[in-house]
This record gives sequence, structure tokens and C-alpha cells, in this order.
Amino acid sequence: MTYLDHAATTPMLPVALAAMTEQLARVGNASSLHASGRQARRVAEQSREQLAAALGARPSEVLFTAGGTEGDNLAVKGLYWARRAADDRRRRIVTSPAEHHAVLDSVEWLEAHAGAQVTWLPVDPTGRVTPEALADALGDGSDVAVASVMWANNEIGAVSDVAALAAVAHAVGVPLHTDAVQAVGQLAVDFAASGVDALTLTGHKLGGPMGAGALLLRRDVECTPLLHGGGQERDVRSGTLDVAAIVGLAAAARAAVEDRVERTAQVAELRDRLVAGVLAEVPDAQLNGPALDDVVAGGPGRLPGNAHLSFPGAEGDALLMLLDARGIECSTGSACSAGVARPSHVLLATGADPARARSSLRMSLGHTSTDADVDAVLAVIAPVVERARRAGAR
Amino acid sequence: MTYLDHAATTPMLPVALAAMTEQLARVGNASSLHASGRQARRVAEQSREQLAAALGARPSEVLFTAGGTEGDNLAVKGLYWARRAADDRRRRIVTSPAEHHAVLDSVEWLEAHAGAQVTWLPVDPTGRVTPEALADALGDGSDVAVASVMWANNEIGAVSDVAALAAVAHAVGVPLHTDAVQAVGQLAVDFAASGVDALTLTGHKLGGPMGAGALLLRRDVECTPLLHGGGQERDVRSGTLDVAAIVGLAAAARAAVEDRVERTAQVAELRDRLVAGVLAEVPDAQLNGPALDDVVAGGPGRLPGNAHLSFPGAEGDALLMLLDARGIECSTGSACSAGVARPSHVLLATGADPARARSSLRMSLGHTSTDADVDAVLAVIAPVVERARRAGAR
Repeated sequence: MTYLDHAATTPMLPVALAAMTEQLARVGNASSLHASGRQARRVAEQSREQLAAALGARPSEVLFTAGGTEGDNLAVKGLYWARRAADDRRRRIVTSPAEHHAVLDSVEWLEAHAGAQVTWLPVDPTGRVTPEALADALGDGSDVAVASVMWANNEIGAVSDVAALAAVAHAVGVPLHTDAVQAVGQLAVDFAASGVDALTLTGHKLGGPMGAGALLLRRDVECTPLLHGGGQERDVRSGTLDVAAIVGLAAAARAAVEDRVERTAQVAELRDRLVAGVLAEVPDAQLNGPALDDVVAGGPGRLPGNAHLSFPGAEGDALLMLLDARGIECSTGSACSAGVARPSHVLLATGADPARARSSLRMSLGHTSTDADVDAVLAVIAPVVERARRAGAR
Repeated sequence: MTYLDHAATTPMLPVALAAMTEQLARVGNASSLHASGRQARRVAEQSREQLAAALGARPSEVLFTAGGTEGDNLAVKGLYWARRAADDRRRRIVTSPAEHHAVLDSVEWLEAHAGAQVTWLPVDPTGRVTPEALADALGDGSDVAVASVMWANNEIGAVSDVAALAAVAHAVGVPLHTDAVQAVGQLAVDFAASGVDALTLTGHKLGGPMGAGALLLRRDVECTPLLHGGGQERDVRSGTLDVAAIVGLAAAARAAVEDRVERTAQVAELRDRLVAGVLAEVPDAQLNGPALDDVVAGGPGRLPGNAHLSFPGAEGDALLMLLDARGIECSTGSACSAGVARPSHVLLATGADPARARSSLRMSLGHTSTDADVDAVLAVIAPVVERARRAGAR
């Protein structure tokens, strides 16, 4: 099987799997005061320190969550509610139409039900939000509750200059949240250096388990909880700490950050060969998102494992199914909404026409990808596209 | 080590641990359309069917969550928002002061920030909410958004007659949510037969993993999401399905329901011997909550593993620490708020005075409890209480 859907979920790293399964066999609620509870707490706090160290954050800035969707919802809604409670003029949310649905749908719910006004940021043709666009949208910032711009796009891999965006937001006193779900482990993510106020990450995109993530939140940023209760996690996120999953998350993050430079160089090399090979086999295919060698703020301007292409005249869903039948697993876009055949909202946001958006395919490489995976795609992509085109023409 | 804190968290059942670790090693996002994704989806849906069958629910009524706190927040806030959106007169929430903090704090947040009005139900001296009290509080129900009454209390073990409460609520058109976190696997929980509209459960109280739970929600009940995004779980709870944890949850629920009658009879026998022994060793100790042989609606009126006692003149925290030093692990109340030395809000709700509430200790038995555990407590409880009393008198 050729798995080219690492952006949807990537296999657990052996070190994370081992650490997690060991903890699963132990008993102890980290809020209990007895020895087993204190032991669970110790393990959770060591994981917090490990995760913080891997990401340039302080341990007290790490709030464990159940994953990326919760982190995005908590940041967007929590910052909106808290900032508006402090000053009722702050009703505006500034974000881009290329965000993940966890951000988009949170923003739209706040607009429909909680008095928020939304300013949609323009996205450049590569999928990136520029500091100039953010500055324009923020104005003097006085009526803005929160801005949210993803670090790296999950569909087309575009990386934004998050540090520059944070500087622009802070210049007018607005906090910036960034969805870094795809960035952690792939790019150099340093929470302190980035200047962002809140950063979402999740375990299962970096070799950790599903069901475990974190929101990195600066100490001086108020955030209204989504989940009320026992008062865990600075009273911002209640709920029994899922210690085993947290251990797996931290172990994976540490490992992914440690070998990042070497691993992503290999992955990018495979990805470049994949894209070049596909364009050679299907000459009218089009690469979406930034150029493969694009650079932003001194780092890659495109996620190293991301290949996103359109095949004019072919339906993305048909391509996906035809490849799947040949043992090659990829995606037409975000797995979350992949069940519904709609043109990618991300590509539409970059100005692509709906036909191009509907004919697109994402192949995302990761830590288990090999030359054989690339060879497998190149061996079948031309006849698969040909067949999808014939099916579409009927 | 004598672990008597099963109500805080109970060790994973081997069958659940095995099922979960097997799935952790597989890759696949249940929302992906390729073979690995479909396989993950199949596993998740089989778990959904298993969980539904164990609890008298339909598979489509199972919404997977990250645990009890999320389930309670989703039910209380989601039903409040949805019911009020349908009719703006519905602003009242009817609940009891003996609920878990995940319900209490959700309700209080809605009161402070979302225009809710709260009617607090009286709790009888055993910790139970009666159908008469609920009927009184609901009135004609026209201004009530939601009622929430827990199935079994996590501190003092009181079981309410949930089916009777649901009938009362439905008589005036009000949906009833119940926090059944402590009830599932301990009592006969049948979602359909109970008549409740929404039911919270979590894995780590019944031999499954932390970080996995479910909200059982009737198909005809509208519930506004807490977590927006990819649209998973009937669009009520977005987020990548944590398939491995879901498998562990379902396996544990099935096993816990299957051997419930036999296991809880053994646990209750141990618990009865524990309580009788403690009262013999410390004659002025007081049992809190319902009598050991109490009956409600044909079943136990008290959780079979729950022993909750007050030791006049001794501080619960001192007892906990002295027992812990002797290898006996228990709790002064809910683990979630155990970090803070406050008298139990549950005991106060039953009308107990603060001194009695502060001198209380919860010992909760479960599937790994043995006669040796009971013996261990009885061997030290008298000198421990004596010492705690001396410490308190200084």
C-alpha cells in the first residue's frame, strides 16, 4: 500500500506508541492527591515540559486539548469572548477564507449567534496571507477581537510569515491565533520567536496519537473556556487529563522536532521527484500552491511533504478512487470534509476557478514515505488521469 | 498498593487495552475515502454499534466525545442554545447543586454570559433528586430550555430514578440530560428505556481509556455544537475521530455491561464489609448518602462501589494523606476539584453542615478490588482517624 495522505493522519512514531501504551496500563487521575495521582501528574507535567521545550514555549503556556478542532475552536471563540467581555467594541474577527473548517465554522457561528463581524482577508494566488493584507484588514485594531491565520495550509501547503503577521497584529493591539496543525514537525515552529498569542497543534499529524493536542497560549492572554468543569489547564480547559495520549503527543513532538531538518529534506526530495514525475507523465497537470522551492522568512514557503495538483478534465474524486483501487491512498483535500464532493474552498480562495478546484488531488508525504511510493504513483498516474477524463467526458 | 479511587479513574480492562493498542498501530483517518480511511471508519462504526447495543441506544444516537466534561458541556450548552434559538422564552435551566462541576460550571457560565436563568433543584438528604422536586421546579415548562440531573452522584453514590425524572420533564415538554458517567457499567443503564434525551458517559470510569466518551443524544433533539469544523458526528461534534480510543471505549463498555450483575454484586459485598468494618473501628463515623441497601426503581439506590464517610473531628485531607502514606489511595471527593481544600459541594447540597463535609472521605471500589484491600483499610483506619483528629485539634 502506498500511503500518501500524511496530512490527514500520519502513522504513530514507534517511540510515541511505546510511551503511550506503557502509560495506558497504569492507573491514576492526575487530579488525585494520592501517590498514583501524583505519579500521573508528574508524567503529564514532564510531557508538558517536553512539548514546551520542543516548540519554544514555556510549560505554563501549554494547554492540553483533544486535538486540532478543539484548539481552533477554543482559541477563536475563547479569545473572541474574552476580548469582547473586556471591551464590547471588539466584535470583529479577521481571518482568511483558506483556513481549516475548525476556524471557519467557529467564526461563522460567532457571526450568526454571538454578534461577531467578520473581515475576510485576501489570499494571494499561492494561498498565503501577507502582512500587508492583514494590516489593511485590521485598521487601527480597536474594534478587533482576534485575528486568526494558519501557519501552513493543509490543502495546498502554503506557508505564511507568521512572525510578520504577529508583528502587524500587535502593532494595533490585536492578538493573533495561528492553526499550526500542519506546521509542527514540518517547519521551524518556535512559539516565543513567532510572537503569536495562541497556537493550535495536534498529535496525529506529527506521529503522535489522535485525540491529543495542545493550544499554546501566552500567559497574558485571556481566553474564555469552551469546556467548564474541574478547572484543569489554568481553568481554561477542564476535563480529566488524558495522560497516556499526552505522553504520546509529547514523545512524538520531541522526536519530530529533533529530526525535522534531515527528515523534511528527504521528504521534500521525494515530493519534488513526485511532482516532476507527474508533470512529465501528465504534461497539462498544474501544481497548486507555492512553487516547490518557494521561500518564506528564510524557511520553506511550502510544506515539504505537500504535492497538490489539478488535472484538467478529471474529477478529483474519480482520481482518488482510481488510485485507491491501485493501492495508492491520497485525498482531494481536507479529510474532514472529504466525504462531500465540493470544490476545495482553499483553491477557490486563491482565485482558482471551480473546475480547477474540482480536478485537484493532494498527495502528502511523511516519515514513512519512500522512493517506491513515488515510483508507484508515476507508474499509474497517466492511465489513471486518462481514465478519469474519459469517465468525466461521458 | 490499595487502590480505592475507582470513581476517579479505574484501570483499563485488558480487553480494552488490547483492542486499543492494536488500533493505535494502524493508520487511517475515518473521514478519508481511501481503503485505510474506510477501514478506520468501519472500526469506528463497529464500535458505535457495540456501544449502542450495550446501552440500549441506536448507533445513530451515539456521538463520540473526548470524555465526560465535554459531554456535559455539550449537552447543557448545546441544548440550551438550540432550545432557546427555537423559542426565545426558554431561558431557564433546571438542575441540582449536587451535579458534577462540568454541569454546574457550564450552567453558571450560561447564567453569567448567555442570559440563562437557573432554578436549583432541592436535593434530599441522601443526595437524590425526586420527581416531585423536578415537577415543582419545571412548572408548565414553557420557559425551560433544559433540565439536567445526574444518574448517580460521583461523591456519595446516590442514584436518582432517571426514568421517572424523564417522564416528569417530558410531561411539560422539557428535554432531560443526565450525567451517567458513574452509572454506566455499575447500574442497569438503558438509554431508550430511561427516556432521557441526552446521556453523558466516559471511558475511563468503566475500564476504557481516558480521552474517550460519548454523548447519547436522541435523534429528534436539536443540539448546538461546541466544536465546529469538519462536521463529524451528525455535525454536532467536529474533530477527527479518535478511532483507537473509541475502540477501547466500546470494548470496555461491552465487557463492563456484560459482567455487571455478577461484578457489582461482588463489589457491593466488599463495600458493605468495608463500611461495616470502618463503623466498627470508628464508631462515631457517619455514612453519607443513601443506605447501603437502598433501592430505587427496582435497582440499587447507591452505587455498588461507593463508600463515603465522615469522621467527626478529622479533616478529610489529613485522612487522605495519612492513608496514602500507608499505601491506601482514596479521595475526599471529586478528583477534579480535589486539589482545593473545600467542603464537598455535594454534601452541603444534602444539608450536611460544613464540618461534616470537610471531614469526609470517599473510598470507591471497582473491578480490581479484593478482600485484601478491605483488610488493609480496616487494619489502619482507627489509628489514622485518631491521628488526624489529634492533628486537627492542635
